[in-house]
Amino acid sequence: MRRVAIVGVGHTKFGKRSDASLRELAFEAVKSAIEDTQISLNEVEASIVGIASDELADQLLPATPVADYVGMNPKPNIRVEAACATGGAALRTGWMAVASGLHDLVLVCGVEKMTEVPTARAIEIMGMGGDVQWEFKPFGTTFPGYYAMYADAHMRRYGTTERQLALVSVKNHRNATKNPYAHFPKEISVEDVLKSKPIAYPLKLYDCCPISDGAAAVLLASGERAKRITDTPVYIAGLGCASDSMAVFDRSDFTSIKSAILASKQAYKMAKIEVGDIDLAEVHDCFSIAEIMAYEDLGFCEKGKGGKFIEEGQSEMGGKIPVNVDGGLLAKGHPLGATGISQAVEITKQLRGEGGLRQVAGAEVALSHNVGGTGHFVYVHVYRR
Amino acid sequence: MRRVAIVGVGHTKFGKRSDASLRELAFEAVKSAIEDTQISLNEVEASIVGIASDELADQLLPATPVADYVGMNPKPNIRVEAACATGGAALRTGWMAVASGLHDLVLVCGVEKMTEVPTARAIEIMGMGGDVQWEFKPFGTTFPGYYAMYADAHMRRYGTTERQLALVSVKNHRNATKNPYAHFPKEISVEDVLKSKPIAYPLKLYDCCPISDGAAAVLLASGERAKRITDTPVYIAGLGCASDSMAVFDRSDFTSIKSAILASKQAYKMAKIEVGDIDLAEVHDCFSIAEIMAYEDLGFCEKGKGGKFIEEGQSEMGGKIPVNVDGGLLAKGHPLGATGISQAVEITKQLRGEGGLRQVAGAEVALSHNVGGTGHFVYVHVYRR
Repeated sequence: MRRVAIVGVGHTKFGKRSDASLRELAFEAVKSAIEDTQISLNEVEASIVGIASDELADQLLPATPVADYVGMNPKPNIRVEAACATGGAALRTGWMAVASGLHDLVLVCGVEKMTEVPTARAIEIMGMGGDVQWEFKPFGTTFPGYYAMYADAHMRRYGTTERQLALVSVKNHRNATKNPYAHFPKEISVEDVLKSKPIAYPLKLYDCCPISDGAAAVLLASGERAKRITDTPVYIAGLGCASDSMAVFDRSDFTSIKSAILASKQAYKMAKIEVGDIDLAEVHDCFSIAEIMAYEDLGFCEKGKGGKFIEEGQSEMGGKIPVNVDGGLLAKGHPLGATGISQAVEITKQLRGEGGLRQVAGAEVALSHNVGGTGHFVYVHVYRR
Repeated sequence: MRRVAIVGVGHTKFGKRSDASLRELAFEAVKSAIEDTQISLNEVEASIVGIASDELADQLLPATPVADYVGMNPKPNIRVEAACATGGAALRTGWMAVASGLHDLVLVCGVEKMTEVPTARAIEIMGMGGDVQWEFKPFGTTFPGYYAMYADAHMRRYGTTERQLALVSVKNHRNATKNPYAHFPKEISVEDVLKSKPIAYPLKLYDCCPISDGAAAVLLASGERAKRITDTPVYIAGLGCASDSMAVFDRSDFTSIKSAILASKQAYKMAKIEVGDIDLAEVHDCFSIAEIMAYEDLGFCEKGKGGKFIEEGQSEMGGKIPVNVDGGLLAKGHPLGATGISQAVEITKQLRGEGGLRQVAGAEVALSHNVGGTGHFVYVHVYRR
């Protein structure tokens, strides 16, 4: 199996980006990924583009304006989609394009422009990531509601508290103050979270990630090629992916995401690592409860002890496994198609030692965990310096 | 590079399938692909699902209800999309999944349910496959209009006639009478085509493919695994893919599809074949002019001689290169996500000698050509017995 490495990364500022269209956001990220290397865009052989929604993009085949505008015409191009895990799916597909030997140097770009539609419509579009036939249409379910069910179940079964949920958001907002690309780089307190507007009990406004525009890009190269491009390749050493039922009523447990458990086991096995080897992790904290479930699903702590894990500061900078040092979805923002690639960008910087104020000292092994829908897709990647 | 072979194929009847939902159509195709082999669905490691439109699917992450309903939960799943070439993109991605060594046995399923929305809306949705910002919104362009421009330009420059365009539709409808899965399995005459309702000059109703529901599926295995599954593996020997500008006004030529020329050259080179080696081809005849351009773009005849190629019967059963022996998009139907996989299904049957009444005698090498949009994506595959 050919080794595949990340050799260049690019990222836009996340937020309400009224100044840039979908294709312009992608251009910004791709330009900075190219400038991050000594190579020219002409050398890049193909692109994989992650965009979650046609309607948000206001375009069928939304990968085309992106690939065309960033300068990839007439090269091979594929769009992949896995809802909020679209970026993770694009990364896996880019890895396959290189590992298969079809290409030596591939651009993977994730982008979403979410603020062009009214917020209520954006939430409705995302709600259509639940089972439209059996849940969204009959019951009007949207994602804050689904994750509120997870939170409620977790609190009832394991005694997890609203304060513990709030601590996740407080940590991620603090981390975001050290990330110039974050949507909400501001310190907040536990009280701020607890007093923020109720969204779906027990989740409050600060338990929920914002609606953001943004793009991120990575350049993937074969192991051989990577060595000629950079002195600091970051290898994708393990890949995991699992899926789950369309309808949430078909799930047997509402306190964990089964597909995350399965996907992480695959990735650990392929990378030949144990949880203890992980120096930092980017996890899918679309809601505060999602990060607590991730601690457990990924094996960072025992089942039911996620609340305690954050309370003890184990996921803080300097803790056992620093999690979402870039602010995570909660404070960096969550432009659907970009998120999985954004995680890979942050990890690449960390493993290169270019994390700036948020650098995890001596990081050698890292993990990303990108969840689509309510666990409909999970993509886990393990990276090595 | 690992060899990859098709070891099982399945196909639904194409047409107005009011009897089946999106997930049910997919189930029908996947069930028959599994039954085509001696293996159990449990052995299949991952799925790649091709669906072109969220709105037609009435679902974000539309690959999930499909993968779940066909029995692939909790295995890895990725949705790919490339408009009308979504199936071709899914096939390429499935090939990468196996060739990379990540998986040994992968399901690739393409499906679209197009008749749930009013026809005018379906045409509008597909129209959003043109540049929405610069063409669809300001000018109201839809696909019959784009391909009418191609036809008009081809007629003016090369003297191609409306009668020659009609001959494509006559051939494909005749071929469809031998295909039990076809949407319109009925003989029509040149007069029928010429007298049919004008759609966009010079294209008439019978110059345009219908709006169809349907699904198709293939099982891909590594070369080693394929030999243990079947005595008649069909190898994917060459892959090609190219893209083009989002806006048609950025193209330099309206009488050919540049991305098809580029993609076919890649596929021929990889498969180490010349055009003369091809025993039959499935090409993307969304409109009659598209098949004539395909003859030229794929090198079946000289540039500008496509009209003559059909007039001389070179693409008929028994001709130089029989094209669209299953009826093509014009008469078999064109459920967007399914089409590229449907082409692979037909070719697999032909190379196995299971083509029934439409068998091309002694076929050993075949080609599929799947176009997304107006050439925004082209996927070409070369297959060998």
